[in-house]
Amino acid sequence: MKEKVVVIGGSAAGMAAAARAKRKKPDLEVVVFERSKYVSYAPCGLPYLYEGLIDSFDRLIYYTADYFRRERGIDVRTRHEVVDIDHSSRQVIAINLNSGKEVIVEYDKLVLATGGISLKPRAEGLDLSGIYTIRTLDDGEKFLKALIKSNTVGIVGVGFGGLEMAEAITKMGKKVVLIGKSDHILPMFDKEFIEVINNVIVNKGISLRLGEKIVSFEGDGHVRKIVTDKGEYKVDSVLISIGIKPNTHFARKLGVKLGVTGAIKTNEYMQTSVKDIYSAGDNTETINLVTGKPAYIPSAPTANKMGRVAGDNIAGGSMKFPGVVGTVILKFFNEHIGKAGLSYNEALREGFNASYVDISHNTRSHYYPGTKKVRIRLVFDLDTHRVLGGQFMGYEGVIERVFALTAVITSKMTVEDLATLDLPYNPPFTPVWDPLIVAASVAMRKLS
Amino acid sequence: MKEKVVVIGGSAAGMAAAARAKRKKPDLEVVVFERSKYVSYAPCGLPYLYEGLIDSFDRLIYYTADYFRRERGIDVRTRHEVVDIDHSSRQVIAINLNSGKEVIVEYDKLVLATGGISLKPRAEGLDLSGIYTIRTLDDGEKFLKALIKSNTVGIVGVGFGGLEMAEAITKMGKKVVLIGKSDHILPMFDKEFIEVINNVIVNKGISLRLGEKIVSFEGDGHVRKIVTDKGEYKVDSVLISIGIKPNTHFARKLGVKLGVTGAIKTNEYMQTSVKDIYSAGDNTETINLVTGKPAYIPSAPTANKMGRVAGDNIAGGSMKFPGVVGTVILKFFNEHIGKAGLSYNEALREGFNASYVDISHNTRSHYYPGTKKVRIRLVFDLDTHRVLGGQFMGYEGVIERVFALTAVITSKMTVEDLATLDLPYNPPFTPVWDPLIVAASVAMRKLS
Repeated sequence: MKEKVVVIGGSAAGMAAAARAKRKKPDLEVVVFERSKYVSYAPCGLPYLYEGLIDSFDRLIYYTADYFRRERGIDVRTRHEVVDIDHSSRQVIAINLNSGKEVIVEYDKLVLATGGISLKPRAEGLDLSGIYTIRTLDDGEKFLKALIKSNTVGIVGVGFGGLEMAEAITKMGKKVVLIGKSDHILPMFDKEFIEVINNVIVNKGISLRLGEKIVSFEGDGHVRKIVTDKGEYKVDSVLISIGIKPNTHFARKLGVKLGVTGAIKTNEYMQTSVKDIYSAGDNTETINLVTGKPAYIPSAPTANKMGRVAGDNIAGGSMKFPGVVGTVILKFFNEHIGKAGLSYNEALREGFNASYVDISHNTRSHYYPGTKKVRIRLVFDLDTHRVLGGQFMGYEGVIERVFALTAVITSKMTVEDLATLDLPYNPPFTPVWDPLIVAASVAMRKLS
Repeated sequence: MKEKVVVIGGSAAGMAAAARAKRKKPDLEVVVFERSKYVSYAPCGLPYLYEGLIDSFDRLIYYTADYFRRERGIDVRTRHEVVDIDHSSRQVIAINLNSGKEVIVEYDKLVLATGGISLKPRAEGLDLSGIYTIRTLDDGEKFLKALIKSNTVGIVGVGFGGLEMAEAITKMGKKVVLIGKSDHILPMFDKEFIEVINNVIVNKGISLRLGEKIVSFEGDGHVRKIVTDKGEYKVDSVLISIGIKPNTHFARKLGVKLGVTGAIKTNEYMQTSVKDIYSAGDNTETINLVTGKPAYIPSAPTANKMGRVAGDNIAGGSMKFPGVVGTVILKFFNEHIGKAGLSYNEALREGFNASYVDISHNTRSHYYPGTKKVRIRLVFDLDTHRVLGGQFMGYEGVIERVFALTAVITSKMTVEDLATLDLPYNPPFTPVWDPLIVAASVAMRKLS
C-alpha cells in the first residue's frame, strides 16, 4: 500500500507541504482538507482588489484545487471540515460541507497547517452583523459585499493590515475610522520613528483614533456604532484587524506540545513532539534569529517555507527551517515603510543593551533627478556591536535596504561589518555612501 | 609642533582620508594636493550631465576645495602637481600649476590616493586629437566640448562605463559606434546571461562591434577613423573606456610594495609596507571576499571606504577595510542590470567547483499591476553549497536583490541559508516566494 500523508488546511503552509512532498516522492498519496472553497490563494491581495487595482477574486488564486488534483496528483478536498483526528488509529474524520457526508481518511503522516484565528477585542456586541475579520478569500468576498453598502467603515487595529485596508477603503471613496489601542500606528515600529505617518493618515481624510480601547459595538442587530473608552463612532460596517493567534485546536487534542508563545512547537524539520505529526504555518512557533528565542511571527512567506520544509522531510528529505528575523515592508499611499529585526523598544524588552541612530540620507546621488530622502533608524547592541534591527521610511529606497539588512541581521554582522559592506553604487540607484553605510558609520561614532 | 598629514590626490579616497583624520583628531594639520581644479566630485555623474538630466558641472561636486578649507580646516591645494616625495626627510615637493612655483611640505604621515590611470589599447594614432579618456571632471568638460561638435562618436570599451556613455551620447542625438575586444558586453557577466542586452543596444541605433581589436586611429591630426582587425568606422571623436590601472608611480619610487595585482598592497588598516605611508583608492589592492585572494576592483564606494579607514587609523583609530565582493548596478535605458560576487566563468577561473541556475520570476505578486519579470543567474559551489555570485536583469526588482545578495555573499551563506532567508513580502513590492528564494530553491534541487 502507498504511504499516505494527510494535510489539515489548504492555505500557504498546507499546499506548500503537499506540493513539496508529492514532488519529491511522487508515489506518496497526499490528501489535503480545506474548509473554504479555495486553496493556494493570496488574502494579502485583498486591499488591492478593493481599491480596484485587481479586477476579480480569481486573480488572487495562485493555483486552483483542480490544478493540484489534475497536474500535481494531490487529492485536494475543499469545503471539507475536519472534525476529528485519531492518531492511534491514524484516521482523520471530515465533513463534506456540500453534501453533509462524513469522510474518513487514514494516514501515515499528518501535517497540521491549521493556520491562525483572528483575534477579537474583549468587547460587547461582537455578535452583531456587519463585523468582519479576514483570513480567507471567502471572508474577503463577504466583507466586500458589506463595504459596497457602507458609507463609513470602522477599522479596529493599526498594524499593517489595518493600514492597508484603511488606504484601500479610502480609495473606494468610503469614510474610514481607524482605531488602535496602541499609542502609535504599526506597533512593531518605534513610536518616534513612525508617528510622522499619522499626518499622512489624517491628510487622506481618515479619522485616526489612537490609544482607544474598544468597549462595545452597538446596533439593531447590525452594527451602527463603535464605542471606545474615549468616544463613539458611527459606522456601517467594521473590520477587526488586530492580529491572529495560532489555531491549536487539534494539536491540543492530539497531545502535540505547544511552545511558550502558545503556538505549536516544532524542531527545525517542522516535526512536532508527536511522531509523524508535522506542523507548519500560522499555527506554528518559530525562532527569532535576533534573540535566539521562540517567537510567534506569522507571515505568508514563513508559512510557505515551513510548509515546504515539512513536505520535504515527510518525503525523506532533510531541509531545515532555522527561523526568522521579522521583516515588514509596506506601501501606504506614497510612503514606503519597512523594517527588519527588532525596533529599539523591542530590543530593550528583549534585554539587549541596545542603542540606535536616526539618519536621513539621499536615496541616490544628490545630483540625480528625482532623488529623495530615506529615513533610517538603525538599532544595535552596545556590547557586541551587532546590528539588531532597522526601520526605514521614504518615497523610495526602502525595499533594497530592508533586503540587505535582512541578510545582515541573519548573519549577525556588526555595525563595523555593515559600514564596510560592498553595497552597489550607481547614481540612478544609490548615492556613493549608501544610507545604510552612513547609518552604520554614525553608529560607530556612538560606539567609539 | 602639530602632527602633519599629507594626502596625495583629492578625489574620493584622498578627501575621505583627509576628512576622517581631521574630524577624528582636529589638531592634525592635513594638506591635500590635487592636480585638477576639483576635489570631492562625481565623475560617475558625467553621463547624466551629457544626456541633460543634470544642468551643470557644479552639480557633480560634493564639496568644494573652499568648503574643505573653511569648514573642515583642511589645507586643500588644487592645481598642484606633486613632483617628488622624499620619505627619508618626509617632504613632498609640488608645483603650483597656476603660478609655476615649487612648494615643499613636510609630513609625519603620508596618504597615497593617487587613483588610477586610464588604460589605452595598443594601437597606432593614440596621439591624434579628439581621443579622450575620462578620470576627472576636467576630462569630462573637455570631452563634452568635443561631443558637441561630433556627429559620430566612437566608444572603445563595452564595460559599464562604455555602456553608460553610449546611452548618454545616443540621447544627445549623436551616432555611437561601440567597440569591444570581448565577445560580449559587460565582461564581468556571463556571456549567455548578458547578451540579450545586445538587442537593446542595436534597437537604440547604436552600432555594436564585439570581438574587434583596435588596430589604429587614423586622421589628419584629428581622429577621423577607428580601424579594427575587422572593420573601419568613421568617427568625429573617440572615448576610450577600457578600464584603469593603478597609479603606482610614487609608491614604486618610495619602495612601497605592490601586490600580485600590480596595485599597492596594504593591510586592513590601509598601511603600506613602509611605515607611516598609507594607501587608499583606485591605486590600492584589496581582498576579494569570495575568493579570499588579493584583487584589484576599483570603485568609488571602495575608494571612499578605504580613504576613511586610512584617515581613521592615521588619527589613532582602528577601523579596518576587509575587502569587497564585487558589485555592479547599472541602468541601461530601461533595463536594470546588477551583479554581486562572481560570474559562473569567473568562479570556474578561480578554481571553484561551481554551478549555476537561471530563473525568471515575477518581481511582485502575479496579480499586482505592473509586475515584471526579473532574470537571475545564481552561482554556487557544488562542494560547500556557498553562494558565490548572482547576476540580475529586469525592468525592476534588480537592486533590492543585489543588495541582499551582497550581504549573503559577504557572510558566506549557503544556498540552503538563502532559501530560508526571511526576505520581506508585500504584493506591491515582492511576490510571496521571492525570486532569490526561488533561485536558491532551484539550486538546492540541483545539489540534491
